Amino acid sequence: MASIAPTPDASQNPALAAQAEILARPATDSRRLADAIRALAIDGVEAAKSGHPGMPMGMADVATVLFTKFLKYDAADPRWADRDRFVLSAGHGSMLLYSLLHLTGHAGMGVEELKRFRQLHSPAAGHPEYGEHPGIETTTGPLGQGIATSVGMALAERMLAARFGASLVDHRTWVIASDGDLQEGVSHEAASLAGHYALSKLCVLWDDNHISIDGDTALSFTDDTLKRFQAYGWAVRRIDGHNPEEIASAMAWATRNRKPTLIACRTIIGFGAPTKAGTAGSHGAALGATEVAGAKELLGWTAPAFSVPEDIKAAWEAAGRRGAGTRRSWLKRLAKHPQEAEFDRAMSGKLPEAWHESLAALRAKHAEEKPKLATRVSSQRALEALVPSVPEMVGGSADLTGSNNTNVKGIPAITPGNFGGRFMHWGVREHGMAAAMNGMTLHGGIIPYSGTFLVFSDYMRPAIRLAALMGIRAIHVLTHDSIGLGEDGPTHQPVEHLASFRAMPNVFVFRPADAMETAECWELAVKRADGPSLLALSRQNLPALRSDAGENRCARGGYVLAEASGPRKATLIATGSEVHLAVAARETLEAEGIPTAVVSLPCWEIFAAQDAGYRNQVLGDAVRVGVEAAIGFGWERWLGADGIFVGMSGFGASAPAEELFKHFGITADAVTAAVKKRLA
Amino acid sequence: MASIAPTPDASQNPALAAQAEILARPATDSRRLADAIRALAIDGVEAAKSGHPGMPMGMADVATVLFTKFLKYDAADPRWADRDRFVLSAGHGSMLLYSLLHLTGHAGMGVEELKRFRQLHSPAAGHPEYGEHPGIETTTGPLGQGIATSVGMALAERMLAARFGASLVDHRTWVIASDGDLQEGVSHEAASLAGHYALSKLCVLWDDNHISIDGDTALSFTDDTLKRFQAYGWAVRRIDGHNPEEIASAMAWATRNRKPTLIACRTIIGFGAPTKAGTAGSHGAALGATEVAGAKELLGWTAPAFSVPEDIKAAWEAAGRRGAGTRRSWLKRLAKHPQEAEFDRAMSGKLPEAWHESLAALRAKHAEEKPKLATRVSSQRALEALVPSVPEMVGGSADLTGSNNTNVKGIPAITPGNFGGRFMHWGVREHGMAAAMNGMTLHGGIIPYSGTFLVFSDYMRPAIRLAALMGIRAIHVLTHDSIGLGEDGPTHQPVEHLASFRAMPNVFVFRPADAMETAECWELAVKRADGPSLLALSRQNLPALRSDAGENRCARGGYVLAEASGPRKATLIATGSEVHLAVAARETLEAEGIPTAVVSLPCWEIFAAQDAGYRNQVLGDAVRVGVEAAIGFGWERWLGADGIFVGMSGFGASAPAEELFKHFGITADAVTAAVKKRLA
Repeated sequence: MASIAPTPDASQNPALAAQAEILARPATDSRRLADAIRALAIDGVEAAKSGHPGMPMGMADVATVLFTKFLKYDAADPRWADRDRFVLSAGHGSMLLYSLLHLTGHAGMGVEELKRFRQLHSPAAGHPEYGEHPGIETTTGPLGQGIATSVGMALAERMLAARFGASLVDHRTWVIASDGDLQEGVSHEAASLAGHYALSKLCVLWDDNHISIDGDTALSFTDDTLKRFQAYGWAVRRIDGHNPEEIASAMAWATRNRKPTLIACRTIIGFGAPTKAGTAGSHGAALGATEVAGAKELLGWTAPAFSVPEDIKAAWEAAGRRGAGTRRSWLKRLAKHPQEAEFDRAMSGKLPEAWHESLAALRAKHAEEKPKLATRVSSQRALEALVPSVPEMVGGSADLTGSNNTNVKGIPAITPGNFGGRFMHWGVREHGMAAAMNGMTLHGGIIPYSGTFLVFSDYMRPAIRLAALMGIRAIHVLTHDSIGLGEDGPTHQPVEHLASFRAMPNVFVFRPADAMETAECWELAVKRADGPSLLALSRQNLPALRSDAGENRCARGGYVLAEASGPRKATLIATGSEVHLAVAARETLEAEGIPTAVVSLPCWEIFAAQDAGYRNQVLGDAVRVGVEAAIGFGWERWLGADGIFVGMSGFGASAPAEELFKHFGITADAVTAAVKKRLA
Repeated sequence: MASIAPTPDASQNPALAAQAEILARPATDSRRLADAIRALAIDGVEAAKSGHPGMPMGMADVATVLFTKFLKYDAADPRWADRDRFVLSAGHGSMLLYSLLHLTGHAGMGVEELKRFRQLHSPAAGHPEYGEHPGIETTTGPLGQGIATSVGMALAERMLAARFGASLVDHRTWVIASDGDLQEGVSHEAASLAGHYALSKLCVLWDDNHISIDGDTALSFTDDTLKRFQAYGWAVRRIDGHNPEEIASAMAWATRNRKPTLIACRTIIGFGAPTKAGTAGSHGAALGATEVAGAKELLGWTAPAFSVPEDIKAAWEAAGRRGAGTRRSWLKRLAKHPQEAEFDRAMSGKLPEAWHESLAALRAKHAEEKPKLATRVSSQRALEALVPSVPEMVGGSADLTGSNNTNVKGIPAITPGNFGGRFMHWGVREHGMAAAMNGMTLHGGIIPYSGTFLVFSDYMRPAIRLAALMGIRAIHVLTHDSIGLGEDGPTHQPVEHLASFRAMPNVFVFRPADAMETAECWELAVKRADGPSLLALSRQNLPALRSDAGENRCARGGYVLAEASGPRKATLIATGSEVHLAVAARETLEAEGIPTAVVSLPCWEIFAAQDAGYRNQVLGDAVRVGVEAAIGFGWERWLGADGIFVGMSGFGASAPAEELFKHFGITADAVTAAVKKRLA
């Protein structure tokens, strides 16, 4: 196809003349340091026979200036709380990051690791994976996520500075982003938020290389990106990304700015490659022996593969120690700080000593009062207990605050002028919200929870997936969780969303049945530190089903809510707003002499992790009926081959909720009838 | 919470003064017509005790000018092919659309329908639902979708004009969008595309009312939206949305423009409401009797609920006939057009007579040659057969053309200057791509197919859901469909995506095993006119497993690929790239005297729709083993209580593909061992 970049032809590649001009400039120390990145990136990709050399080669000069002059870090302690955060949003250029970690002397990224780039169990994975090396701030690769995550980091920095003061918290967030990052919709949501909050310590270095996988970006991308970011309230600048002085001057300008900054770094992708530079050919595959040899010759790089001349390595390691003194001073300030222990606790993700006391009191109250509430309202009650007790909890909503009930009286909103608040008005930006929440958690010191309708979890899915993959805490309050929302109709009625997230590894999907279970599920969600939790909550009121407050019964994922009066003939298994239907059906069946148990199954993932003995005891051997106002996909796991499912088989409809439950046959009568038919 | 809009207080609501000033202007005919919309919207929401009166009341003046002066339509035939398309992206304001359809004399939207707003089986559903009334162009409600869908409609118009000429195809796309639409990320992707392609016949009327659900939009939204759209290459203008002359002048300007246009219509939400106008209080709930009475009094509207004075109704019906003459002339041109039959065929969604002949030839060739190909390459072969035979097929890729293999030699790309092409470089905009594809299908005359990695289907999910809900054809080519993609690692390796879409109603998920099945699945996907199809395709090469080309065996969703040599002791059920592992395991087991069948299950949804007799015959009574390089969620449906699943239980990893299959235990040996262990 004519529009796909052709095999590069040196004589027809205009980037090569520009490259020659740059190579002809007097060599600088910065260029020599940058060439070390280029050489390692080339070697890593070549050894793996897979990867993306073009981006590290193109952005090496920018990254070198950042890591040798601006970024605040100390290679001796990559988890230092007040370090600047560096996010490689263009995660495919992972060898850039691994080379930097290696060169600056970070432990755990030796030459052996680089040689095992993209191999099983190597910390140098295909894309940067959070947890594989302490110097990796976040997992990136799916485009747009890194830049949106970084907005959350920059927000977290402001919020912690408001809480603990600038003597403990005063750092920047630097991002390298690609054309692809800026084409993704989530970049709009994130940039708009950053502009609104005037996050002046956020600086995005845009690798403006004019090349994406299909060829010249002009094939599909002709935005005036700088103007677009100005429209968000950012300060912008355009520079030659191969000129160390221009780069340094722009970074200095960024650090002085009162707005978030975007620096368009005009670069040549694959800089140094003799024929593939400036083309998509250098983007996503090993260069090949000839091109590698040519590149090293052009760059004047004579060291063997994976080795770096001593003077260059020494200069890089000195850069890696640049922040050591600053860190020592900071440690001294921390030691003297009145909130030292609290700061350490919050940053470590450990909950406060007495965090669940108010929640325990609330559960006791629920047991006594048995309130009839929508679980979204029960959730608000739980938050009223939790939020004052857990100062790192920060809530929000994507413009549905009153509907999601995620606000807590007396807790002020976060505004551009007041980062001491603890409630975010995210705007209609679900995706940006979820990604920024990941950034808050990764930054440390914050436990974020969101608010939107369950159906709009679809918009957040790529970011929730990253939270699951990284194994980090993020809590999503997802209300209006079934046809029970009524008149808004099928566009707003989730039917497949529970299943779609139950299918996603490492996500806990909670669907509590009443006020008590809602409090219990909140307790479990807040306690969970190794992955995201979703709370699916009803719009409609639900009767209280529990009067025991001792044990957190949701902690086993599922339990017998009401045992049969004799040997079980049926077990009704339900979640959320359908549990009370099961309870009503049980009453009828028992009255007709059919001993029936009701099982509440608020969290499948936790229940699945229980021992088989417990699971079998709960589910029993009698006829099993599943009840959930959602499609049945996945229910076979609990119902077995002969189980009966009472629920949805397709999309919902627009009508008052009670009519819909009747229309779709999700009623206590339907459950009763199904059991009797089976037993007949 | 202080930042939530307080209960409106007339004395403290600055919008009321502005409203009074507007109401004091000399009454115009346009205002009287607009008040009919307001009154009906108020009455509809009041009767339903649910809905969104604020938006229709605010945008009534803009809509009136559009429907009485600019929109090309004929109420007598809402499906007239060359009508202007009107998209209510702010779908919550559905009463605006229903009122307009009613007032202009469209059949099927009588006063009885308006009275049943938001009731079961009413065409006047909570949000506009495609298919409920022929005047509803698309389903809207999830914010951002309508504006992105409209970009696809505007693209389709250009493409069909290129194919059939301006005498048949020459219409505009008008969109009403809210603040929320413009906050959503997909609006960025869509607007950027529209600017790139200079879609000058697209006009977005932004309801710039400064209010969203949480209160003043300034809480979270301070973009300079006009500047942002200028950065995309749009022409922009700001007007008073209650001034009919300004509105008309801006629309006239839009029709003359060479760029897509954004008109910021400054309006007062809930215009007419005596205390709630200009506040979030008028957005999402019935106004209540007192406010309704006050509003009608302010507007001077004395007619009873749901009725419209005769002169006003007559004026509206005349507007509904405005396009009748234009339509008659167009019908005459069509009757004389050399491509009349072809135009009708393409617009109706009917495939060409001989559309599958080349595909049949390809299948015969595959049967003979048994090529070892990645299914993404087999897919390209299928496209090479299909695309020349089906002129309405339009392909594309979200910047992964070479990886998705969605391009066909000799088929030119669509460029801003050439809409005669049939391949879209969508850029890194998966969400915008999927939504615009919906718009292409809805417009008619195009069968769109996309390209991206399966893992990035997460980005497209809200738009795919709408295609499923609307029941419209859209084909998504999703390559790199498992850990088989290797080194890119877990961010790029889908493990839960098959399950997550199998859970979504009305989506067909195809996962073919070899070149033959790929051709068969393509045939089924193209034939399917009532919902979206996803094709999950491998990066890695796969052996050919079939040598029969007669019957399309995928047409039953699953089938016995290899029967056991004796009474079955095991049935191995697999999809896609794991079917050949099952075949290899079968060979071993048969050699060891264990009669084993292999079932290929390329499309669960079709298989589930077969009669139970066929399904049982295929699946058999022997031990069942499922094999799929994905998580097992949902497999219980086919495996039963005692089945064994060989697949993933969590996220993948970065390493060469063969190593990953070994690492995760998805091998023929693992399948063999599992069967033998069970039978032991």
